[in-house]
Amino acid sequence: MSLDRILNAESVAVVGASRVETKRGFQAIRTLLDEKFEGKIYAVNPREKRVLGFPCYAKVSDIEDPVDLALITTPAATITAVLEDCGQKGVAGAVIIAGGFRELGEEGQRLEEDLIRAAHEHGVRVIGPNTSGIMNLKTKLNLVGLHDAPPGDIALVSQSGNMALSLITEARLKSRKGFAYYVGVGNESDVRFHEYLEFFRDDPDTKAVLMYVEGMRDGRRFLQEAYKTTLHKPIILLKGGRSATGQRSAGSHTGALAGISEVARSAFQRAGIIVVEKSDALFPVAETLASLPPLKNNQVAILADGGGHATIAADILSDQGLTIPELHHKTQARLKEILPFTATLRNPVDVAGGTDADPSLFAECARIILKDHNVGGLMMVGLFGGYGIRFAESLSWKEEDAAHQLGKLVDKRQKPIVVHSLFSSAKPHALDLLRYYQIPVYDSLDVACTCVGALAERGRYLKEYHAKVNFVFKWHAKAKPEGRRIIHDAREQGHRFLLEPEAKRLFGLHGAPVTADALATTADEAVKIAHKLGGEVALKIVSPDILHKSDAGGVRLNLLTKGEVHQAFGEIMDNARRYNTGADIRGVMVTAMAEPGFEVIIGTKIDDQFGPVIMFGLGGVMVEILKDVSFRVLPISPRSARHMMEDIRSAPILNGARGRPPYDKNALQRLLLLCSEIVEAYPEIEEMDLNPVIAYENGVRIVDARIILREEVHSEAAGSRAEA
Amino acid sequence: MSLDRILNAESVAVVGASRVETKRGFQAIRTLLDEKFEGKIYAVNPREKRVLGFPCYAKVSDIEDPVDLALITTPAATITAVLEDCGQKGVAGAVIIAGGFRELGEEGQRLEEDLIRAAHEHGVRVIGPNTSGIMNLKTKLNLVGLHDAPPGDIALVSQSGNMALSLITEARLKSRKGFAYYVGVGNESDVRFHEYLEFFRDDPDTKAVLMYVEGMRDGRRFLQEAYKTTLHKPIILLKGGRSATGQRSAGSHTGALAGISEVARSAFQRAGIIVVEKSDALFPVAETLASLPPLKNNQVAILADGGGHATIAADILSDQGLTIPELHHKTQARLKEILPFTATLRNPVDVAGGTDADPSLFAECARIILKDHNVGGLMMVGLFGGYGIRFAESLSWKEEDAAHQLGKLVDKRQKPIVVHSLFSSAKPHALDLLRYYQIPVYDSLDVACTCVGALAERGRYLKEYHAKVNFVFKWHAKAKPEGRRIIHDAREQGHRFLLEPEAKRLFGLHGAPVTADALATTADEAVKIAHKLGGEVALKIVSPDILHKSDAGGVRLNLLTKGEVHQAFGEIMDNARRYNTGADIRGVMVTAMAEPGFEVIIGTKIDDQFGPVIMFGLGGVMVEILKDVSFRVLPISPRSARHMMEDIRSAPILNGARGRPPYDKNALQRLLLLCSEIVEAYPEIEEMDLNPVIAYENGVRIVDARIILREEVHSEAAGSRAEA
Repeated sequence: MSLDRILNAESVAVVGASRVETKRGFQAIRTLLDEKFEGKIYAVNPREKRVLGFPCYAKVSDIEDPVDLALITTPAATITAVLEDCGQKGVAGAVIIAGGFRELGEEGQRLEEDLIRAAHEHGVRVIGPNTSGIMNLKTKLNLVGLHDAPPGDIALVSQSGNMALSLITEARLKSRKGFAYYVGVGNESDVRFHEYLEFFRDDPDTKAVLMYVEGMRDGRRFLQEAYKTTLHKPIILLKGGRSATGQRSAGSHTGALAGISEVARSAFQRAGIIVVEKSDALFPVAETLASLPPLKNNQVAILADGGGHATIAADILSDQGLTIPELHHKTQARLKEILPFTATLRNPVDVAGGTDADPSLFAECARIILKDHNVGGLMMVGLFGGYGIRFAESLSWKEEDAAHQLGKLVDKRQKPIVVHSLFSSAKPHALDLLRYYQIPVYDSLDVACTCVGALAERGRYLKEYHAKVNFVFKWHAKAKPEGRRIIHDAREQGHRFLLEPEAKRLFGLHGAPVTADALATTADEAVKIAHKLGGEVALKIVSPDILHKSDAGGVRLNLLTKGEVHQAFGEIMDNARRYNTGADIRGVMVTAMAEPGFEVIIGTKIDDQFGPVIMFGLGGVMVEILKDVSFRVLPISPRSARHMMEDIRSAPILNGARGRPPYDKNALQRLLLLCSEIVEAYPEIEEMDLNPVIAYENGVRIVDARIILREEVHSEAAGSRAEA
Repeated sequence: MSLDRILNAESVAVVGASRVETKRGFQAIRTLLDEKFEGKIYAVNPREKRVLGFPCYAKVSDIEDPVDLALITTPAATITAVLEDCGQKGVAGAVIIAGGFRELGEEGQRLEEDLIRAAHEHGVRVIGPNTSGIMNLKTKLNLVGLHDAPPGDIALVSQSGNMALSLITEARLKSRKGFAYYVGVGNESDVRFHEYLEFFRDDPDTKAVLMYVEGMRDGRRFLQEAYKTTLHKPIILLKGGRSATGQRSAGSHTGALAGISEVARSAFQRAGIIVVEKSDALFPVAETLASLPPLKNNQVAILADGGGHATIAADILSDQGLTIPELHHKTQARLKEILPFTATLRNPVDVAGGTDADPSLFAECARIILKDHNVGGLMMVGLFGGYGIRFAESLSWKEEDAAHQLGKLVDKRQKPIVVHSLFSSAKPHALDLLRYYQIPVYDSLDVACTCVGALAERGRYLKEYHAKVNFVFKWHAKAKPEGRRIIHDAREQGHRFLLEPEAKRLFGLHGAPVTADALATTADEAVKIAHKLGGEVALKIVSPDILHKSDAGGVRLNLLTKGEVHQAFGEIMDNARRYNTGADIRGVMVTAMAEPGFEVIIGTKIDDQFGPVIMFGLGGVMVEILKDVSFRVLPISPRSARHMMEDIRSAPILNGARGRPPYDKNALQRLLLLCSEIVEAYPEIEEMDLNPVIAYENGVRIVDARIILREEVHSEAAGSRAEA
C-alpha cells in the first residue's frame, strides 16, 4: 500500500487534543495552525468541548468527513482501542507518539505486538510508536512541533529525533536547502524503512533521501527498494551503533568477524547508497547530491588562492580515491595568460595573488578549467566570499559577479563545483548567491572534500550500473535427499551442528572439492586409512562435544610414518578425554594433508537485518588478525562472487603477485556460488565455516568445514525465507 | 641562540616603509600603530622623509637607538645589502616577506643561499623569506597585517599563511581561545622549526604549540626538541602534503613503501606530538589541550539527552580506542534517584527527558558521574545551551547555573569535560560561560570526539613517559675493517650497491644469522656445493646488472636432486642472459633452503627530513600488498625495536596465535638493533632491504639481503651525520 494518504494527508485527527499548553495534544494543533496546514484539522477528546477553537469529537469515528491520518498523543494503554476506532472510520494511518514499547524490553515488546495486531486487523498503518512524528513541508503537515524547519527537496528519514533536529538545524543555519518530508521512524513496528523509499522514489518533489539508521527490521526488502531508488535519486545514509553492535556480535570464531557493520556497509554500497561515516558530512553530502550533477570521470581540479588549503584538499581527495589530473597544456597556457607568473598551473591551480585585485577572475579560471576534458568537476578552496570582508568592500561586487558566472557555468558544463570558503559563516552575499545556484559552500575542507568524494562515488555507481546484475534475492537452489538426511540425523541426535565429516559429506554431495578422509576408531584403523590415503596425513578428533578441535589438542598434522600416526591417535584421544571428560568421542578423522597453497576462508551466517550473508577472506592464522574479508548478502551472482575476491586487500595475491602464477579464481568462484546454493537449499543452516579452503593454481580444496544448525525451523518460516 | 630578541622584540625597523597605502611597507606601520605595539617603531626608506608621522632613516644603521628586529618588505634583489647593514647595527633578526626564492626552483634556491650566507656572516637571524610575517600578541608586535587575531595562550607556527588565517578566523568565531604568538615559517631557510619549539617551551605564556607543517629541513633536531617540549606542554600538528610526497616517493621495492608520511607520523607520535589528521579538528584539539587536564585512564563517560547523539559519540570514541566503561552500580543508583525511569544509566547515560524541565540537572549528573573512579572524563552531547532557545527562556538561567557548576567541577575533580552542543553557533550565554571555564564546546560530534581522543592520547603519553628511553640519536657503532673493505671494493668497481653475497657477508661479519651459501660459476660446481650444504637448495643469479632477480627468472627454489640443480643452473643463466644481454654475470649463488617459518622484512633508508629510518613488517609476498609495516628513526633503542614488532597489525602472529608457539622476538630484536648499528657504522649505506627474514621458534635467518650505497660520501658529511 502506498503511503500517499498518510504522508500527503489532507485531514488529520489529533487524538488526545488538550487545552494544557505543555501537552503534545495542545502543541500539535498549535503547530498545525501556526504553520498553516493546508488540510483539515479535527480535535478528538471525549472530556473536552473545544481546543484552540476546534470542537472536540469524542472519538475519531464521530467525525463526519473523511480522515486520512490520526496523530495519537494518548498513553500506551489507550492506543489499541483508538486504532480500532480509526479502522472503523477508514483512517489510513496513525502516528503514535507514546514510548514504553519494545525499547523498554520484553513486556513493552508484547504491548507493541498487540498494538500492531490491532492495527493490521483494522487496516490502519502505523508510524511509530516511540516516534518524534512526521512532517510534510509542502502541505505544512507538521506533526513534530518544530517550527523553523526549512522546506526543500530532501526527504529525511531518521531513527533518532535528536539527529533529525541536528540535521534540520544545520540545514537552516548553514545552507539554502531544506526538506520535503521528515519521517521519525520510531520503533519501525509496522511501516518499514523500505516503504518510505518506495514512496520517496515516486515523489516528484524529493530529489534525495537522507537517512539516519540504527537498526532495520527487514534489511533485504530495504536493499531491494534502495537498489531501485538509487537509479533515480541518491540515498545518503549514516549507520549509528557500529560499536555497540560490534560488542553484541559474538558467536563462533568466524562469526565474531562478521560484525553487522561491515555487512551493512557493503550491502548498502552495493545497492548504490552513499554511506557517510562522519555525522558532520551527513547533511552536506545530501545537500550536494541533491544540488549537483555527479562527477562523471572521478577526476577533479582544485582552484585555490593559497598553498596550504590546496595541499590539504589534494591530500583528502587522494585519500578518497579521486584523481587530480594534470591539466592539458592548452588549459595551462590559457590560465597563464590571466594569472601572475608565480601562479601554479598544473593542478592544483594556485592563483598566487592573481585574484587579489579582482576576485571575479575565479570565474574565468573555473571556465577555463572546466573546459578541460580531463576535468570532471571543480573544487574551489580558500577565501572566496571574503575578499569584500577582508580587503575592500568593492571587491564583494566582483565576487558576486563571479558567483553568477559560476552558477551558470555548472548548468552549461554539467560539471559540479563545490566551494570551500573560510568566510562561509560570515554569510557574505556572494556565497548566498552560489547556494542560490545550487553550488554548496562549506567552511570545512574535510566536509567539502567528502562532498566531492560523494559526487564521484555516485558518478561511478551510475556509470557501472548497467553492467550490474539485478539486485533480487530469488533463485531456488535444491537440497539433495541425502543432504536432508545428514541434517535430519544430526537433529535426531539432538545436535545443533554437523560434525566435520558430516559437513564435508554434505559439501561433497553438492560437488565441492573436499579432502579425502575416513573415520578411525582405533589407532590401527587410523594407520590403515593413512596407508590407503598415502603420503602425509592429518588426524582430527571427531566429537559432538568438541567443536574447537585445536583448543582441545585434538589435531595433529603432517604425520608420515605408521609410528607417527599410531602415537598421534593415542595422544589425541587422551587430550580429548582430558579436555572434556564426558565427551561423546566418535573417533579420529584421518585426512590426506592438503598440498600447501593459498589459504582462504568462506563463512556464512544469518544476519538479523539482512538474512543470510556470506564472507570471503584471507584464511588460516591470518583471518582473525588481519580481518581481510568481504561480505555479501546471499544469494550471490557469479559477478558478486568475483567481486568478493577482488574486494579483499590481499586480492593481488590471488592474481599472482611477484611473478607467481595466479590461483584458481574460477574454482573459488564456483565454491562461493556453491555455498550460496547450499545455504539456500537447506534453510536449517544457521552458520557455516570453511576454514581453511586451500586454493591452488588448479582447483581448490576444503580442508575443514563446520556447519551450525538453527535451533528449530518451522517449514513455514523456511518457506517465507525462500520467498523473501 | 634564543629567539627572545626577535619574538619579543622591543624595537622594529620597517625597511621599505612607504606612503603608498597598498604597499606592505605602509600597511606594516599602520598595523603596528592600530594594534598599539608597545615597542619602538622606525621607518627606513632613503627616498622618503616621513611615513605615517615617523621620520625616515636612509638605512637601519642610521638609527641611533638599538634595534631588535627588522621587517624587510623590499624586493628580493635588495635584501643582501639590507642584511649587511642590519648586521652592522646589531639587529638580532630579520623577517623577510619577499618571495621568489627556493619555492620557484633552482635559480631562486641560489638566491636564497646567498641571502642566508650574508645573514650568517653578519650575525642576523632570518625568518622567511616568503613568510606572511610574525605576531607577538602580548606586546602587539603584529607584522602580519591581520587585525582581529584573538590573544591567548596558543603559539601558532604555520608553513602556510592561508592555514594560519583559517585557524585564527576559527579561533575568533568559534572559541574564547587565542594566540600568544604566530610565526609564518616561510622557506625555513635560517631559523628552523626546532628553534621555535625551544623558545615556546620556555615561554611562560604559551600553553600549547599548534603547527601546520608541509616539510621540515631538520626533522631530527625537531624530534629532539619536540620530545623535550611535550613533557611540559602539548604540541598539536597537522602534516600537509601527504599525497604529493607519496607520489614523489619512489625508489626500490621496499623504499616505495616507506612513504614519508608514515615515517613522519610515527616519529612525531613517538616524540609525544598529537598528530591531527583532519584540518577541522586542528584548532579544536589545540584549544582542548590548552584548556583541560589530560584524560588519565582512557575511560570516558557520555552524558546525552537523546539516543542518536549518544550512539554516534560511542561509535567514534570506540574507533579512537577509548573505553566507555559501565558505571559503578552506586553511580547508577545515584543517577536513578534524579532521572526518570526511562533513562539509560549504564553509560552512555541518556537522561530521557529528565532535563527538560531543569537543565541544571546536567551538572548534577556530571557531578555524580565524575565521582565514579572508572570514569576519567566526561563528554556531554546534545542540546545543552539550547534549552533556553528551544523551549522556554527561563531555562537558560538553569543552563547558566549548570555551566558555573560544570566549570568548577573540572577544577575540583581534575577530569576533563568536553561539550557537544547543537546550539553552539547560536552562541547562548551558557556555552560562553563553559568556554570561560575552559570547557570547550563544539557543534560537531566528530570534532568533539576527536578532542576527547586527543586528551586520552596525551594522558597515555604522559603516563608512559617515565619508562621511555631518552630520545637522543647518539650512539656510535663501529665498522669492521673487513666490512669497510667490502664496501670499498664495490665502490672501486663503480657499483652503488652490494651484491647479495657481499651484503650477506657484511651482515655475517656483525654476527647476523644468514643462510649458508656459496657462489657457483658452473653447473657442476653448483651441484657440488648443493651436496655439501645438504637438503634442498635455492639457486639465485649473481650479477651487478640484475638487481630484481625474480623478475629476471634468476631464482629457483626447493631443488633437491643433482639433476634438478644442474638443470636449474642452466636455466637461470639462460634467463639472465636473455633478460639483460650485456649483464656482467658473476655466477649463481647456491643457498641452503631455509626452513619455513614466519616471514618478515626489515629495511632502512635515508629520509629527506629525518635521516636514517628503519622499517619492520610482514614479509614475503604480503609486504607490498598488505603494507603492514612500522617505522622508526634510527638509531633505535632495544625498547623501540620491541615496539616496532608490536606496532604491526600482524603482531599477534609473532606472539603465537591460535596455540602456535611464539616466534623468537628476542632474535628479531637483536637483528633490528644490528641493522641500526650497521647503518650507523657505515655511513655509505643509503638503503638496505632484508627480504625475507625468516623467524622461527628459536632464532631468525636472513634469506636475502640487498644494500644500496650512497652516490658519494665525503668524510665530512659522514662526520656530521654521526654527530647529528
